[in-house]
Amino acid sequence: MQALLDGNEAVARVAYALNEVIAIYPITPASSMGEWADAWAAEKRPNLWGTVPSVIEMQSEAGAAGAVHGALQTGSLATTFTASQGLLLMIPNMYKIAGELTPTVFHVAARTIATHALSIFGDHSDVMAARATGWAMLCSASVQEAHDFALIAQAATLESRVPFLHFFDGFRTSHEIANVTLLEDDQLRAMIDPELVFDHRSRALTPDHPVLRGTAQNPDVFFQARERANPFYRDCVEVVVETMERFATKAGRTYAPYEYTGAPDAERAIVAMGSACETIDETVDALGEKVGLVKVRLYRPFDPKRFAACLPPTVRAIAVLDRTKEPGSVGEPLYLDVVTALREAGREMPVIVGGRFGLSSKELTPAMVKGVFDELKAERPRNHFSVGIRDDVTHNSIDYDPDFAIEREDVVRALFYGLGSDGTVGANKNSCKIIGDAGRYAQGYFVYDSKKSGAMTVSHLRFGPRPIRAPYLIEHAAFVACHHPSLVGRVDVLEHLADGGTFLFNGSEIPESLHAGLAAKRARVFAIDASRVARDCGMGNRINTIMQVAFFACSKVMPFEEALDAICNAARKSYAHKGAAVVEKNLKAIDATLANLHEVTITAAAAPLPPEAGLDLLAMLLANRGDELPVSAMPCDGTFPTSTARYEKRNLAQALPVWEAAACIQCGKCAMVCPHAAIRIKAYDEALIGNAPATFKSLRPMHKDWSGLAYTIQVAPEDCTGCTICVDVCPARSKTHPEQQALVMQPQAPLLDAERANWEFFLGLPE
Amino acid sequence: MQALLDGNEAVARVAYALNEVIAIYPITPASSMGEWADAWAAEKRPNLWGTVPSVIEMQSEAGAAGAVHGALQTGSLATTFTASQGLLLMIPNMYKIAGELTPTVFHVAARTIATHALSIFGDHSDVMAARATGWAMLCSASVQEAHDFALIAQAATLESRVPFLHFFDGFRTSHEIANVTLLEDDQLRAMIDPELVFDHRSRALTPDHPVLRGTAQNPDVFFQARERANPFYRDCVEVVVETMERFATKAGRTYAPYEYTGAPDAERAIVAMGSACETIDETVDALGEKVGLVKVRLYRPFDPKRFAACLPPTVRAIAVLDRTKEPGSVGEPLYLDVVTALREAGREMPVIVGGRFGLSSKELTPAMVKGVFDELKAERPRNHFSVGIRDDVTHNSIDYDPDFAIEREDVVRALFYGLGSDGTVGANKNSCKIIGDAGRYAQGYFVYDSKKSGAMTVSHLRFGPRPIRAPYLIEHAAFVACHHPSLVGRVDVLEHLADGGTFLFNGSEIPESLHAGLAAKRARVFAIDASRVARDCGMGNRINTIMQVAFFACSKVMPFEEALDAICNAARKSYAHKGAAVVEKNLKAIDATLANLHEVTITAAAAPLPPEAGLDLLAMLLANRGDELPVSAMPCDGTFPTSTARYEKRNLAQALPVWEAAACIQCGKCAMVCPHAAIRIKAYDEALIGNAPATFKSLRPMHKDWSGLAYTIQVAPEDCTGCTICVDVCPARSKTHPEQQALVMQPQAPLLDAERANWEFFLGLPE
Repeated sequence: MQALLDGNEAVARVAYALNEVIAIYPITPASSMGEWADAWAAEKRPNLWGTVPSVIEMQSEAGAAGAVHGALQTGSLATTFTASQGLLLMIPNMYKIAGELTPTVFHVAARTIATHALSIFGDHSDVMAARATGWAMLCSASVQEAHDFALIAQAATLESRVPFLHFFDGFRTSHEIANVTLLEDDQLRAMIDPELVFDHRSRALTPDHPVLRGTAQNPDVFFQARERANPFYRDCVEVVVETMERFATKAGRTYAPYEYTGAPDAERAIVAMGSACETIDETVDALGEKVGLVKVRLYRPFDPKRFAACLPPTVRAIAVLDRTKEPGSVGEPLYLDVVTALREAGREMPVIVGGRFGLSSKELTPAMVKGVFDELKAERPRNHFSVGIRDDVTHNSIDYDPDFAIEREDVVRALFYGLGSDGTVGANKNSCKIIGDAGRYAQGYFVYDSKKSGAMTVSHLRFGPRPIRAPYLIEHAAFVACHHPSLVGRVDVLEHLADGGTFLFNGSEIPESLHAGLAAKRARVFAIDASRVARDCGMGNRINTIMQVAFFACSKVMPFEEALDAICNAARKSYAHKGAAVVEKNLKAIDATLANLHEVTITAAAAPLPPEAGLDLLAMLLANRGDELPVSAMPCDGTFPTSTARYEKRNLAQALPVWEAAACIQCGKCAMVCPHAAIRIKAYDEALIGNAPATFKSLRPMHKDWSGLAYTIQVAPEDCTGCTICVDVCPARSKTHPEQQALVMQPQAPLLDAERANWEFFLGLPE
Repeated sequence: MQALLDGNEAVARVAYALNEVIAIYPITPASSMGEWADAWAAEKRPNLWGTVPSVIEMQSEAGAAGAVHGALQTGSLATTFTASQGLLLMIPNMYKIAGELTPTVFHVAARTIATHALSIFGDHSDVMAARATGWAMLCSASVQEAHDFALIAQAATLESRVPFLHFFDGFRTSHEIANVTLLEDDQLRAMIDPELVFDHRSRALTPDHPVLRGTAQNPDVFFQARERANPFYRDCVEVVVETMERFATKAGRTYAPYEYTGAPDAERAIVAMGSACETIDETVDALGEKVGLVKVRLYRPFDPKRFAACLPPTVRAIAVLDRTKEPGSVGEPLYLDVVTALREAGREMPVIVGGRFGLSSKELTPAMVKGVFDELKAERPRNHFSVGIRDDVTHNSIDYDPDFAIEREDVVRALFYGLGSDGTVGANKNSCKIIGDAGRYAQGYFVYDSKKSGAMTVSHLRFGPRPIRAPYLIEHAAFVACHHPSLVGRVDVLEHLADGGTFLFNGSEIPESLHAGLAAKRARVFAIDASRVARDCGMGNRINTIMQVAFFACSKVMPFEEALDAICNAARKSYAHKGAAVVEKNLKAIDATLANLHEVTITAAAAPLPPEAGLDLLAMLLANRGDELPVSAMPCDGTFPTSTARYEKRNLAQALPVWEAAACIQCGKCAMVCPHAAIRIKAYDEALIGNAPATFKSLRPMHKDWSGLAYTIQVAPEDCTGCTICVDVCPARSKTHPEQQALVMQPQAPLLDAERANWEFFLGLPE
C-alpha cells in the first residue's frame, strides 16, 4: 500500500508494531515519533502480537534510556526515539545495553549538538558522539529507507544481539513527506523470527530462573570479558546482509550495507551517509562522467572488506563527506574510517580526502556535489574541506557553480510562503495527498523558523512521474505563492521563481516592489484577496482552503476539476464533525475563490533592484540572507550584541487590540498577561498630553495616589501578534455595558501608522 | 621541593592554586582531587591570587559541569575533576564550553565505562567517549607529569581559548605515590599570564557590558559559525609547544606533544598514551634493539605533521596501543588517528597495526611490551590484537614470555598483603616517606579489592636510587609480608616472592601450607605475633606500626636505626593530639616488636603443590586467579549464576559477638541492625534441641504466642565481620546487671569450629 507520510511517521509505524515498551521524551526533530506512538497507544492500537505497547513519557532522555534498559532486561521488546542532547543523555545506558548484548533499536532523527549555539536542525554530530558505545549504526537516506530500515534493524538486532541505532537526517528525512510503500503486517511478521524473540525473553531477569547481570568486575577478568563479545560484532555485518537479502524477497526492495552507484569505470567517487546520498546519486546520474557514490548504510560495525569491495577498481580519488565536525581531530569520523578501511583492505589510492557538509541542515545541492567531484580532478585536491559555505578565514571551502542544477523538466516545483499557524503547511500536505492519489509522486518539505508560531514558513513541494529524490530546497520553482502580504519586504519571495513561472499573491493588488522582478521573470501573476474572501465567507482568518484552490487553479499541476473534487471531498470529510454549517462555509469559500481569483498584468520598465550590499551580520540575518554570509562574518564563540529584537519588528498582527478608554476600569490585567509585553501602561503628568499625536488616548487615573496625572494603555503595534489574550481577560468586557469593551480587536492595517506614532510618543513619556 | 604524593594530590594542588570555582562530584578514582580541594577550601587555603576558591559539591557530574560552565561565563577560572560515567554526564556542557571557546581544564582520572560490568578501574574508554567534543586532550604518563601538565594545560587553555581535558590513568597514576618535584608558587605565577586571565574576564557575561551568548542558530549561519573557530584549533598545538618550552625554562622539565624515545635507527615502534609509556620506555631501554616509542601527550588537537616528524625515518613497522575498546569500529581511536596522520604526512609504512591493552587496569608489563615488539618482526603482524590476556575465542591476543623482566637489581621491591582498614596501606605510605626522606626514590601502589573494608589490600613498594618508572605490579619481590594469617589459603602470598627473598609473617608460627613454598624459594623467614603484641601494648587491633618496624628490621632497605628514629618521630607527631598515653603505647609497641620478632627456620622436603587445575570460573575468581582465565571462560554478556556469595566466606572477624542468653530480653535488635545479615533468630519446636551440638544455646521465648517453643539467636561466624554494631545496640547491655551483656565480643579463633556447627544446625531448623 502506498501512503504519503513523513520520516518520523514512517519509522514510528514500524517501531510501534514491533515493540511492547516505548519510553519517550520529546526533542525536536524526533518528537513526533513518540507522539504517534503515544496517540496510537491511547487509541489502543495493537502491535504485531496483538497487545497495546506501554508508552511512557519519562522525565528526560536519560530516564527514557534507563526505562528501556530496564524493560529489555525483563525480556520485553522496547525502544525509544531521540536526537541531539537527548541522545547524549542516553549514552551511559547505551554502553551497558551493548555490553549486555541486548537486542533493541533506538531511532534517531539526527540533529546538531549545541556548541557555540543551539540548533534544532539536522546533522550527524549526535550519532557520531555515540559511535564508541558498541552499538550497530544503520543510516537511512530517505523516508522509504527509514520505514524499511526500522524493520531491518529490528530483525538484525534480534539475530545478532547487538543493539542498533537507526538514524536518518533530522528534518530532511524526519519531516519530509513522501510517497512510501508501506510494509504490511505479514511482511513484518515474515521478518521477525519468533524464536529469536523467545531467545530474548529467555535471557530476562526473572525470579523464576534468576541470574546475576550487571556486576562489578576487577582488573583480573574485565578485559577478557570485554573481548568475549567479539564474535557477536564479527557476525553482525553478515546478519545485516542476510536480513537485507531476506527483506528483498519479502518486500521487493534491495539494500546492501555498502552500495555503489555510478559509472562502473568511475575514477572519482564520493562516500557519504544519509539523505545526501539521494542528491549525490542523482547528480552522478546527471553528470554522466566517470564518477560514483558509495552509500554507507551500515556505519557500525564497519566492514572494511565489504566497503572496499564495492568500489570499482578504477577509482583513484575519493572524497569522504562527513555531516559533522570534530574540531581538533585528525579528520571527521567517516573519513578516518574510510582511510583505515581502504588501507586494511589493500585498496589504498592516490587521493582520499575528507570534507564537511550540511552542518545544521545547511543544504547540499547538486551544484555542491559537482563542486566536490570537480575538486577530485585536481592532482592534490584540498583535504578537510567544507562545501556549501564560503570560508574566508581558514580558506577550507571548495568552490562550485551555484547555477548548476539537475532537476528534470517533468517535475513540478512549487514554493509557498506562509506564516506559522496560518494553515499553509496543512493545506500543502493535503495538496500533496491529492496529487499523490492522482498517481503522481509527491514530496513536501516545510522550512520553519525556530521562532515557530507567526514566523515565516516556506513549503517546498515537488510533483513528478517517478519517486522524488531531491532532498534539498527548491531553487527554481515554476510556481510561487505568497500567502501573506506582510512577507513582501521581509523576504525576497521572487528569488526562486523560475523564468516564465506563475506567481500567486494573497492581496487585493500586487505590491509595487514586486513589479520589476515579476516583469523581469516574465511571470504569469494571479491575485486574490483571500483574507477578504475568508471573512466574507465567515471563515475568519482561515485562508488555507482558498489559497489551496487558487494553487490548483493557477498551477495546472493536475486537471483542475479533479483537484476541485478532491478539495471539496476533503473539506466535507475534515469538517463533518464540526457540523454542516462549517462544511457549507468551506464549500462557499471554494466557489468564492474561483469568483475572486484574477490574473494581473504587470508592466514595469525598471529593472529589479539588486539586494542591498554591505549589510552587517544582524541585518543580513533579519533579511533572511544568512546563507550568503561568509565564515568571517560570524563571531568565533557565538557572542552577539544584546537588545537587537528591536530591529526585528515582526508586525504579525492582522488585528490590534484598541483601547476603548471609556469602558476601562484600569485593572492593568491586559498589560500583565500580554505574552509579548506589547501592551504597557503609564501614569504621567497631564501637561505632557499637549504634545501627543491626535489619536493618542488618556484617562484620569482612578487610583487616588495618581490624582493630577494622566493614564494611558498603549499597544506597540508592531510587537503585538494579535493573539487576543488581552481582550479575553479584560474584565470590563462583560460588565454593565455589554455592547462595550475596554479592548476591542480591529484590523491592523488602517491603524498602523497612527498607533506607531502613539507608541513612539508613549515611549517618550516618563516611567 | 620534593614530595611524595599520589597523582590526584599532585593534580589537585595545581588545580586548586589556579582556580576560583571548583565544582565537584565524587567518583572513583577521581574523588580525592575534589576531597583535597574541599579540605583546603575549608581550611581557607588561598589560591595563587590570594582568594579561597569556592568549592561546591553538586548533585551529579552533570551539575558540576553546568556549574563550571556557568562560572566560566561569569569570567571565573573554574575546574572540576571526574572519571567514567561522570565524564559522560559532562559531555553536553563540554560541547558548549568548547563551542564558546572558553578556557578551562577538566582533570580526569581515566576510568573504564561500565559495559557488561561496572568497573572502578582504569582505561581510556571515558576520555575517548569525549573526543568529539572539541576539547584539547592532554595525557600525563606519571605522577610528575600529572602535576606538571595540570599547569601546562591551564596556561595553554588561557592562551588558546580551547578548553583542555587533562587525563591520566585512573588508579595507576591517580593513586600511585611517587616522588614529585613540586611546582612552587612563583613557577605557577610565571606560567600564568595575567593578561590572558584578564582577557578571559573581559569575555564574561555581565550586566555592566552585556552581550548575548548561547543563541539558537538556523541552517543559514550555523555551519559558517562552526568553521569560524578553526584558527583557534589550528593554533592550539603551537600554543602547547610554546607553553611546554616556557615550562622547561621555568621548571627544568622538558616535554613535547609527541615525543620519541629509543633507538635513533629504530625499525619497530610503539605508539601509546598514558602510564604505559613509562613501561614501554623502560622496556625499549632494556631491550637495546632497534625499537622505539612515540609518546602521545597531546591527543587533541592531533597534529599529523609533528607526530610524523618525531618518528625516525628508519621505522618500518608500528603498533598503536589503545587502552580502550570500541566494538564495531574499524579500529580503536588512536590507531585510526595514527593511520590517517601518517598517510597525510606522507609517512606511510609497510606495517601499522593496532592493539588493545590494559582495559580496566589490566597490567601492561615489560614482557607484554616485548611481545608487541616481537610481533612487529613478522611480515604480516596480527592487527587489532589484544595483549595481556589469552583470547581463545577470536584468537586476537598475542603471545609473550611472561618470565621476561627488566627490573634492576638496585631497586628494592616489597609486597605487603593486608586487609582493608587494618592500617597496612597507611603504614606503607609512611615507609615510603621515610625512605624518600632518606634520599631514595620511592613508589607505592596499593591494590584494593572493590569490596573495600575487610577485603584484601596488596601494597606494592619500590625503592631505588633513581626515579621509579615501573607503572605495573611487582612480580618478583625481595620482601613479602603477610599481615593477616587468614590470607593464607585465600591467596598465594608466596607467588611473587623472589628466590632467596625475605618473608615476614604476622602470627605465632608459620602455617604448614607455606613451608614447602618457602623452602623451595630458599627464603629467609621472620615471624611476629603482631596481634598479640598489639593487644599486650593496649593498641587493640592496630598492628600497623608493629609490622612497619618489623619490615624495616627484616628488609634492610635502609639503616635500621635511622628508620626506627623516623618511625618513633612519626608516632610522636601523629599521635600527639591524642595525648601522651597514646604516644607512649606506640613507642612501647615499637620496643615490643623488636623483642618479639624472630627468624624461623623452615625445613621441608615436599615440593610445593601446583595450583589446582580445572577450577570453574567462580572458583578461579574466588582464588584470586582471575588473571589466568582465558576469554572463553567469561560469559558473553556479563551474566552469572546467583547465590554465589555462600562460596566466598570471607571470615574476616577477629572477634565474634557471643550470645549470653541469660541476659537477653529478646528484643531482636541485634538481628535487625546487622549490616551483613549475620545474626538471625528462630523460634522452633523444643523437641528439636535434642539433636543440637553441645554448645548450641536456646531460651524459652518471652512472647506468649511462642509458648512451648525454643528461642535462639545465632551468629554466622564466617559472615560476621566483627563490626560490633549488634553489641552496641543491645539494650540488655546496661540494664540491671551491668557486668552482664546479652552480646559480648570474644576472640573468633577458639569459637570458630563450634559456632560453625551451631550455624549449620540453626540453618536446618524450620523458619
